[in-house]
Amino acid sequence: MNIKEIINKKKNKIELSEEEIQYFITNYTKGNIPDYQAAALLMAIFLNGMTQKEIAYLTIAMANSGKKLDLSELGNVVDKHSTGGVGDKVTLILIPIIASLGIPVAKMSGRGLGYTGGTADKIEAIPGYQTMLSEEQFIQNVKKIGVSLITQTLDLAPADKKIYALRDAISCTDSIPLIASSIMSKKIASGANKIVLDVTYGSGAFMKTKQEAIQLAKEMQAIGEMAGKETVSVITSMEQPLGYSVGNTLEVIEAIEFLQGKMQEDVKQVVLEVGAQMLKLASQKEWVTTKEERMIMPNHVDTVQEQEYKKQILENIKNGKAFAKFKELVYNQQGDISYLENINQFPKAKYIIPVYSQATGTVHALDAGMIGKISCELGAGRMNQEDSIDLTAGIILHKKVGSQVQQGEILAYIHTEKQNTIEKATKDITQAYQIY
Amino acid sequence: MNIKEIINKKKNKIELSEEEIQYFITNYTKGNIPDYQAAALLMAIFLNGMTQKEIAYLTIAMANSGKKLDLSELGNVVDKHSTGGVGDKVTLILIPIIASLGIPVAKMSGRGLGYTGGTADKIEAIPGYQTMLSEEQFIQNVKKIGVSLITQTLDLAPADKKIYALRDAISCTDSIPLIASSIMSKKIASGANKIVLDVTYGSGAFMKTKQEAIQLAKEMQAIGEMAGKETVSVITSMEQPLGYSVGNTLEVIEAIEFLQGKMQEDVKQVVLEVGAQMLKLASQKEWVTTKEERMIMPNHVDTVQEQEYKKQILENIKNGKAFAKFKELVYNQQGDISYLENINQFPKAKYIIPVYSQATGTVHALDAGMIGKISCELGAGRMNQEDSIDLTAGIILHKKVGSQVQQGEILAYIHTEKQNTIEKATKDITQAYQIY
Repeated sequence: MNIKEIINKKKNKIELSEEEIQYFITNYTKGNIPDYQAAALLMAIFLNGMTQKEIAYLTIAMANSGKKLDLSELGNVVDKHSTGGVGDKVTLILIPIIASLGIPVAKMSGRGLGYTGGTADKIEAIPGYQTMLSEEQFIQNVKKIGVSLITQTLDLAPADKKIYALRDAISCTDSIPLIASSIMSKKIASGANKIVLDVTYGSGAFMKTKQEAIQLAKEMQAIGEMAGKETVSVITSMEQPLGYSVGNTLEVIEAIEFLQGKMQEDVKQVVLEVGAQMLKLASQKEWVTTKEERMIMPNHVDTVQEQEYKKQILENIKNGKAFAKFKELVYNQQGDISYLENINQFPKAKYIIPVYSQATGTVHALDAGMIGKISCELGAGRMNQEDSIDLTAGIILHKKVGSQVQQGEILAYIHTEKQNTIEKATKDITQAYQIY
Repeated sequence: MNIKEIINKKKNKIELSEEEIQYFITNYTKGNIPDYQAAALLMAIFLNGMTQKEIAYLTIAMANSGKKLDLSELGNVVDKHSTGGVGDKVTLILIPIIASLGIPVAKMSGRGLGYTGGTADKIEAIPGYQTMLSEEQFIQNVKKIGVSLITQTLDLAPADKKIYALRDAISCTDSIPLIASSIMSKKIASGANKIVLDVTYGSGAFMKTKQEAIQLAKEMQAIGEMAGKETVSVITSMEQPLGYSVGNTLEVIEAIEFLQGKMQEDVKQVVLEVGAQMLKLASQKEWVTTKEERMIMPNHVDTVQEQEYKKQILENIKNGKAFAKFKELVYNQQGDISYLENINQFPKAKYIIPVYSQATGTVHALDAGMIGKISCELGAGRMNQEDSIDLTAGIILHKKVGSQVQQGEILAYIHTEKQNTIEKATKDITQAYQIY
């Protein structure tokens, strides 16, 4: 077996075997295969596609390329992953809810790259919160209080990391087989038994159309099936930002308010939909869904059981158990819970500037992609892995799709430490709104 | 402009501009673009193809990437190139013929890689012959005696050299746009005004079918048209080796015999076909052909003018002028012409071993690709650029397609310095023949 033959096969649309994919991943990770041969193979994969078998083999090979987390002593752990969005604080909200319902939550979350911070960046906006725990400490925490949220301290799926960097350098990030295998390899290496995927589409997401999101979801389902991990996909819109806040501290505040009962309707829908599926999968260690039940479309009609799970979620928000669990999580990881009790304590950005509407009418669209990009420029996101982020920076949206607006009314507030970003952000936010 | 955008365009089948192709070639040659990005672009070119405009821009950018030979003081120089074959000694034969007809011949020829040596390797089989001349000496020689044959001493089309090595490493050699631009960039950099291409097809050629050869010829024609170089393609079969000899010294001997009037029929046909086109293009500096006349198919019917050129060629063989010119060429470049006068002087391989037929019947096929590969294993070719070759090694074919054979009759002779190659070569030669 050699890499030139493997490239040649993929170039000629011949299916690669498990051994060939394993050979590529092992030797590329070790540095035995140079970047230029890997680049040629990735471009051939991009243009000629991969069969579901090939995608599954690739995913499993990447998952096995480094250390794998062993969560088996925690029982039936259900992980949750979003394919990305703007203002997406759903993970932060769901973790304590699910834990408050007695389901163990062992969540390892990434740092963000691009638009906004990742969940690990967001929770660090709570002063004192420790995200860098050892594997043992992480599992200990879940055993003790039923929940832990940390960042990726282990070298999980190093092949994926190396391949992702190369894909970025050769304009091959937008490949569904490669996105699917990248996400699933990390999920599999993270040790969960089951997975709920929030697969987003729209201007603020990787996938621009619902059809593409469904395609990506199908690929990930197929991987889940071949890897023996029950995987449910929830297809959700990311045409406009989720909730009213975009930015790290701002989103933590919205999450706290949500858990206290002040719920934005769009956030609530995603929390309930994804949460219900997590509870369903958590109900027993064996598989509980049929193939059809593993794809939750936007027009999905709830079963009686799903209605029941959603009721339980809303109940634990109403009775304060979810918020209490969030405080317990924060306290247990050295976070200062006084911030949770009084959100006005959170540090604020140096500049908080209103953006006024120039038009009167109804908001017909609010471009999530643009809002994400602006938020990033205000300091809330990273363009490169080594960049630092301003936790306080971001945008508060006062008007969303469907809102009535008068000329001169406030559309949004800019939060930033960097005065020189305000003028452009003001202009760009105005353009992100379609009002007529 | 940046390379990621260029890769992305080609990936999405958007035509690249002249500036983008120039940017890639310039920066890749300089080392500003890493191999992995070039590899991704080449694979995208391989899979998505190139328009004729893109191919022409690529060719011209590669031709301009290094020094270009200036032959303008020699007048209307017609170059000749073969896309490769087994036993192909046509260049060696044609050079003195054309020069003997008063047409200046300034031929810069490559060393071989793969099956057999290149023309530069072959002529070095004549003891003393100098192939490494300076540009000035080269042009001086043509001015003095009308002909010179040297190897590539200049750094012509370095971009092509770098891209060819990368294509080889990523299994992308078999791309018609990339083959066409590689050949034509070197021809353009070599300074000829017009070009006759011998485009081969069959088991001993790069292009396996006539259709592919025609496609390659069309691409090269189009490049010639856009680069302002009148280019005629002659499509010829390379299903069986050309002539009776394969190997460096062995082919030089066959070329000498040919010039002395002992002509193999298949070699004669190619010499006449390609030679007639060279004479046609040489007849005046301006373009003399229509588009249709620039593609000479195997079933081509000669015009009166072409018949006349072929007569002139045969005449100059018969009257000894072509052979005399060959001796003059060899003498002028320090070669020992006593070898030309007595071919028995040439050094012989240590082992000369007959291969006997196991069957009785007619030779229906003789696989040129296999014969080339065997010859290479006997020592006549290079697998890597730095390999040395055995000038005496090769194969003499006693039977070709159409020959009647009795069991036990000699099919061919193996010539080699390496005893350990004989057993396998004997078996393989037997298999290369289809006799029934």
